[in-house]
Amino acid sequence: MLYLNEQHMEKIISLDEIIHAIEVAFKIYESKDFHMPDRMHVDRPEGTILYMPCFVEKYSCTKIVSTFPGNIKLDLDSVQGTMILNDSKTGEPLAIMDGAALTAYRTGAVGGVGVKYTSKKDSKRVGLVGTGVQGFYQLLYACEVRPIEEIYLYDLSKSRAEKLKDKLKDKLDDIVVTITNSSEELARKSEIIITATPSEYPVLPNDKALLNGKHIIAIGSYKYKMREIPEAFYSLLDEIYVDTELAAEESGDLLVPIEKGWIKKHQIKAFSSLLTKGTEINKSKSSSLYKSVGMALFDLMVAKTIYEQALKKGIGLKL
Amino acid sequence: MLYLNEQHMEKIISLDEIIHAIEVAFKIYESKDFHMPDRMHVDRPEGTILYMPCFVEKYSCTKIVSTFPGNIKLDLDSVQGTMILNDSKTGEPLAIMDGAALTAYRTGAVGGVGVKYTSKKDSKRVGLVGTGVQGFYQLLYACEVRPIEEIYLYDLSKSRAEKLKDKLKDKLDDIVVTITNSSEELARKSEIIITATPSEYPVLPNDKALLNGKHIIAIGSYKYKMREIPEAFYSLLDEIYVDTELAAEESGDLLVPIEKGWIKKHQIKAFSSLLTKGTEINKSKSSSLYKSVGMALFDLMVAKTIYEQALKKGIGLKL
Repeated sequence: MLYLNEQHMEKIISLDEIIHAIEVAFKIYESKDFHMPDRMHVDRPEGTILYMPCFVEKYSCTKIVSTFPGNIKLDLDSVQGTMILNDSKTGEPLAIMDGAALTAYRTGAVGGVGVKYTSKKDSKRVGLVGTGVQGFYQLLYACEVRPIEEIYLYDLSKSRAEKLKDKLKDKLDDIVVTITNSSEELARKSEIIITATPSEYPVLPNDKALLNGKHIIAIGSYKYKMREIPEAFYSLLDEIYVDTELAAEESGDLLVPIEKGWIKKHQIKAFSSLLTKGTEINKSKSSSLYKSVGMALFDLMVAKTIYEQALKKGIGLKL
Repeated sequence: MLYLNEQHMEKIISLDEIIHAIEVAFKIYESKDFHMPDRMHVDRPEGTILYMPCFVEKYSCTKIVSTFPGNIKLDLDSVQGTMILNDSKTGEPLAIMDGAALTAYRTGAVGGVGVKYTSKKDSKRVGLVGTGVQGFYQLLYACEVRPIEEIYLYDLSKSRAEKLKDKLKDKLDDIVVTITNSSEELARKSEIIITATPSEYPVLPNDKALLNGKHIIAIGSYKYKMREIPEAFYSLLDEIYVDTELAAEESGDLLVPIEKGWIKKHQIKAFSSLLTKGTEINKSKSSSLYKSVGMALFDLMVAKTIYEQALKKGIGLKL
């Protein structure tokens, strides 16, 4: 059995391999050649623990992730996690990985795949609303798939935005990073807008003219009560792409618009079917919305890639 | 985070500390000062995967165990598992342990606690029906709590019984081990009888006179279709002790007798309440039945003990 911590994984990860793993996951999702039981969750006074199992031909996995908001006060990450990768034919554990790091990479890459297929190919300006850990990875992958020259950041906490700006300097030093004073300013300046917040109210202005032609990647909302996207934007869309059909049952960014009649259910399309058909979504110059809630199949395919690369490169701790 | 494989655990384990951990678990069970969500399970063509979470004051855990019977053909253990021990307040993973080894120890110790409190203190002869991996640990713990001089083994597969006899020689070399030709012979010669089989039919003769005065520890049945104990034995019992109340909802050794009217539901007693009250069950010279199906709280308390001992003794791999 192999153990891979964040440092090991960092060494192994190549952004384009992870993006490729996500593309493969989308193809498997479309082929239905996998078994993904419903997420199981346990609610505790401190927060929630999720169990996310998935099974494909050779591998299976369980990601256990806890989100305990109170950890912040203890100067600890609120998200803690463990990924167990198994041989799906025998149940043998093959690898243990840092589940929080894995989640960050795969969510970044799922967003990146969204950017790759729904935004204009020559997009140079990306804006990020919500500058937490997840935002960092979203930008990393967005910059991998588009010739980004300028990044705009907006957050309710300016110090959090400053922190991310510093972190980005190390990783993406040839890109100009600007903290905007409002989400309106951010939206005006950006071609691609990524929202990665836990907000319960739209984080962008409800302004059709302002949002027209924008490509939005919405990552934050995974519950009915969570919303990031304003009503006006929906009227600009013919179709909405979701990473998994579950999104339409879970996210307030889809449930509320359906309820209110801003969109019809049939406008929601599985992104996997478009990817598999090879439809070039990004040829369109019109507005687009890509909504991601994530699924264990992504974790499994990313973990498989990391594991196989680790074996090849001799990285990790043999247990 | 600490990693503990079977060899590490073997070094740390002291039988009486594990027995003590199980006694503490029973006390916590009685106090209700724990949170144990229902086991979750995933069914696959190869077998079943169980997720067993549990939470107490300082620690929480998830044991993931798969049972894939086809592994035997590949010369692999059918039971594979991983135990993840966490800080219950923050969700941080503290230790990863071999889940199959942990299951073997804790199930052995739960049986051992049953022997300790339900059999006569001077019992010298123990019989084991079903000589698989679990049988070995059952005997180890039985011999720890009683002055056993003779062990009797019975199995449908004589070669399996021979293998266990050899294995016992290394561990318990001052005890005489005899393979019997029938379960009748085994029952006649033994004061304590442990059944650890996956049988769907009683594994002991349906003979009231033969079974009178015997102390049975029944480990095998955890489904409605599984049964080890014959009808005649129930008529000898005033009370039946179960390790968890779930046993009466899961095991054919309780469900069928209730259905058929051999016992009344009120005769089934939580062993924890007896242990907590300090009732000396084993003063009685009459027959007794202790039925165990296991629970995650046992795993958690044993994992906690192993983890704390590992830290103290500096054993294990720091990850």
